[in-house]
Amino acid sequence: MARWEPDARGRLEHAALELYRDRGFDQTTVAEIAKRAGLAERTFFRYFADKREVLFWESALLQDHLVKALEDTPESLLPMDAVGLALQAAGPVLEARRHFAEQRQAIIAANAELQERELIKLSKLASALAEGLRRRGVDDPAATLAAEAGIAAFKVAFGRWTEEVGKRTLAEIVRASVDELKTIAGAGPSPGTR
Amino acid sequence: MARWEPDARGRLEHAALELYRDRGFDQTTVAEIAKRAGLAERTFFRYFADKREVLFWESALLQDHLVKALEDTPESLLPMDAVGLALQAAGPVLEARRHFAEQRQAIIAANAELQERELIKLSKLASALAEGLRRRGVDDPAATLAAEAGIAAFKVAFGRWTEEVGKRTLAEIVRASVDELKTIAGAGPSPGTR
Repeated sequence: MARWEPDARGRLEHAALELYRDRGFDQTTVAEIAKRAGLAERTFFRYFADKREVLFWESALLQDHLVKALEDTPESLLPMDAVGLALQAAGPVLEARRHFAEQRQAIIAANAELQERELIKLSKLASALAEGLRRRGVDDPAATLAAEAGIAAFKVAFGRWTEEVGKRTLAEIVRASVDELKTIAGAGPSPGTR
Repeated sequence: MARWEPDARGRLEHAALELYRDRGFDQTTVAEIAKRAGLAERTFFRYFADKREVLFWESALLQDHLVKALEDTPESLLPMDAVGLALQAAGPVLEARRHFAEQRQAIIAANAELQERELIKLSKLASALAEGLRRRGVDDPAATLAAEAGIAAFKVAFGRWTEEVGKRTLAEIVRASVDELKTIAGAGPSPGTR
């Protein structure tokens, strides 16, 4: 009979991150994670499909959060600004798990397969945001461009946030990153021969 | 003794794309590709490390081309405009292989693993462009943002180009895509509470 374990998910996550960091992701088994967490292997599989999902299960929650935040922005905003606000709204969610996010980032940076997984998750976030923009009447290519560019700004901001030592909140860095993007994009058409 | 085969690479590529399209990428073997091309399996491996490389070997060439094109743009340009021009310069290179590019796109769209591979290649292109910008004195985050946003615009443009039936050149679509990005980014700071 399954016994209720207090904060089993948190304990498994903590154990997994320590092992991934110390031994490497590839060298760590689910059995070792469960053992370090003082839990049974079957308990691990009640929470995570596999050892990779310890690092990626939150993406689906983040995606829902972003799409909801986008829906809550005024329809009068420019697409890029709406995306920027939605991404700022994700800040506090990730802020609450800063330590986890930092460790996770270091583990992913050390493993090519995990980097690919991260890219595909970011690409899905961009698709979900583009879909959200289309639902409020923004046509393509504007919808896809605003979403992809916004995710690019978010990616840069997220990297800076895990490197900075708590000087600014993630929301502040996301906003600065989107503003910087707007500045470097500048105004007016591109140079080149028409 | 290795016998010279006229256009062995082209024949292998053609055979591989037909098989990937008709049977699916996962179901196709190198032996089948070589057989359809009328060549020995060892000939295949003289040109490609594995069956996936048939679809991705050109990325390295494209990357060199983009970095070189970026170096050739005037240093006075804004980072985003320099990236835009470099990406436009890649147009004719891909244009010359339009049929291949279209088939390739359809095969990648049908396979999650290949999509991940494509994302990582695009991410590497962005890193190479960011590095090119840093070499000419553009600091981060501007360098990374301009490169990532540029690649986002390129990705959108590339998709449109393979869907459109030769109405515009890829360079024209890339340029329109970068301009659209500049328009949606707008000018001035983002809304939100400071």
